[in-house]
Amino acid sequence: MEHIFLLPLSRVAICGGTHGNEMSGIYMIREMQRRQVEKSSCVSITTVLSNPPSVDACRRYIDRDLNRCFTDDLLSAPITDSTPYELRRAQELNAQLGPKGSKEAVDLLVDIHNTTANLGLCLIFYCFDWVTLHIYKYIQSKMTSVPVRVIQLDIPLAEAYSLESVAKHGFAMEVGPQPTGVLRADLFNMVKEALDLTIEWVQKFNSGNIFEGGEVETYCLTKSIDYPRDPTTGELTAAIHPELQDNDFKVLRPGDPIFQSFSGETVKHEGEELYPFFVNESAYYEKNIAFHLARKITISVPSLSVKKE
Amino acid sequence: MEHIFLLPLSRVAICGGTHGNEMSGIYMIREMQRRQVEKSSCVSITTVLSNPPSVDACRRYIDRDLNRCFTDDLLSAPITDSTPYELRRAQELNAQLGPKGSKEAVDLLVDIHNTTANLGLCLIFYCFDWVTLHIYKYIQSKMTSVPVRVIQLDIPLAEAYSLESVAKHGFAMEVGPQPTGVLRADLFNMVKEALDLTIEWVQKFNSGNIFEGGEVETYCLTKSIDYPRDPTTGELTAAIHPELQDNDFKVLRPGDPIFQSFSGETVKHEGEELYPFFVNESAYYEKNIAFHLARKITISVPSLSVKKE
Repeated sequence: MEHIFLLPLSRVAICGGTHGNEMSGIYMIREMQRRQVEKSSCVSITTVLSNPPSVDACRRYIDRDLNRCFTDDLLSAPITDSTPYELRRAQELNAQLGPKGSKEAVDLLVDIHNTTANLGLCLIFYCFDWVTLHIYKYIQSKMTSVPVRVIQLDIPLAEAYSLESVAKHGFAMEVGPQPTGVLRADLFNMVKEALDLTIEWVQKFNSGNIFEGGEVETYCLTKSIDYPRDPTTGELTAAIHPELQDNDFKVLRPGDPIFQSFSGETVKHEGEELYPFFVNESAYYEKNIAFHLARKITISVPSLSVKKE
Repeated sequence: MEHIFLLPLSRVAICGGTHGNEMSGIYMIREMQRRQVEKSSCVSITTVLSNPPSVDACRRYIDRDLNRCFTDDLLSAPITDSTPYELRRAQELNAQLGPKGSKEAVDLLVDIHNTTANLGLCLIFYCFDWVTLHIYKYIQSKMTSVPVRVIQLDIPLAEAYSLESVAKHGFAMEVGPQPTGVLRADLFNMVKEALDLTIEWVQKFNSGNIFEGGEVETYCLTKSIDYPRDPTTGELTAAIHPELQDNDFKVLRPGDPIFQSFSGETVKHEGEELYPFFVNESAYYEKNIAFHLARKITISVPSLSVKKE
């Protein structure tokens, strides 16, 4: 089986508060800054609260969704007086942690997110990043209290829109269910454990540990489904069906219920077998997404170790 | 045992969207308005979306919490250009559905709310309202899918701050857990069933049905507990303990864990045995409330029937 050598991951960034009402990352970053976590063995760690004004307001964003602002086009757009706050902030973060696609970019970026969906712990990233897939394997083998999964987005780097795309390697650490504006201790503990395991993996990697390859199951986003809406007003006419609610990653077969209309009718899934996720995420109502659908695929991950410089 | 005669309840108001990010009431009111529910047998029904601008913004409120604006003082405060939106709106609603304490006020007001706490279905009102206690008995005897409870606030009418206090009788119908900005079909169905039972009870009452008295268990708010905070910044230093989280109405004994600090220490309950509720409600972080504590009391409810005019 193939073996990959990669340069050491000496600079790691941990970010939270990219969405100002997702509390796990906000409190984790504040706690790491309080404890002055800056260096851990052979790794330097930068902690960043990504969107402080939206954190203060306890809102997802001020002008627009920061975590959709990291495309090449938006990162190179000229700044004027009328530029939305988050576009300016994205360029600042890109200067601090990137620039995206450059040698100067941090080696690994972990951006902590919450969802109202029953996602457990998910690592979300762009296809294919052997580092992230190995970190996933490591976390999954060590954490037994929660299902750990990988979601892959098949988007070219230039169009990759989220914060972690400015780093050489990176992923969003998505945990749920947690309401916006709420901090749950169980999810805080889960994030802490997953971050500790991530840093531990990087230390082992940098120290010359050889990580065995193997087969890894991932979920690859294929399409998004909107709520049934009134054609005139655009208002919802149905909610996620109780049999789909909280059942992220449970296979959806043709004929399975997906929506329950307010007058009581059931809307059923049509087409092929797929895996739903981000079911009933609060921030996605305005994005016209009731849930995403994924195909489950198996990836052969090569073994991995550090290339001595 | 005592028997009470009361005048018919001919005018009922159902309200939602008093908090603009609590979706069960918002969608229930829209659906009732779409179906043009205005009269049901011997009862006239008014449906009100209480705070439309905050519903449009999907935020609890625009300037201040509308559901704290219905005290006598605030309802009689002069309106100026700088009056917060919700104070003006409270006076409008009082003119439409009250005036509070007057003969012209609607007979019964039900205001639909959501909470992120694991409350099930709660009727919240000011002590003592025999109508609401009988409606509670009726709903509890018919609904088996969810725990149904009563929370009483021991506050004089003049200082009663919430919308239902403008009516002759009324209660907040509080259902949870549901994240803000999210609509769950199971909770929507629960609210619909409880509203249908409420209307059914009013119809039976108006038609001369005699409702037997009996003993009723209620939770009476005694005090509120704030999160542990950093004395300098005011920021949280702990979250609700996992053993308390989601355990609303489970008795709290001295020594039981209530908070888990971010560095891992446990904070324990001190003092007498009490019942926690509204545990980790998102809107209460800014109100410095981690949870409320209640005493459980038993009330002897007299039998009740309509007084023919």
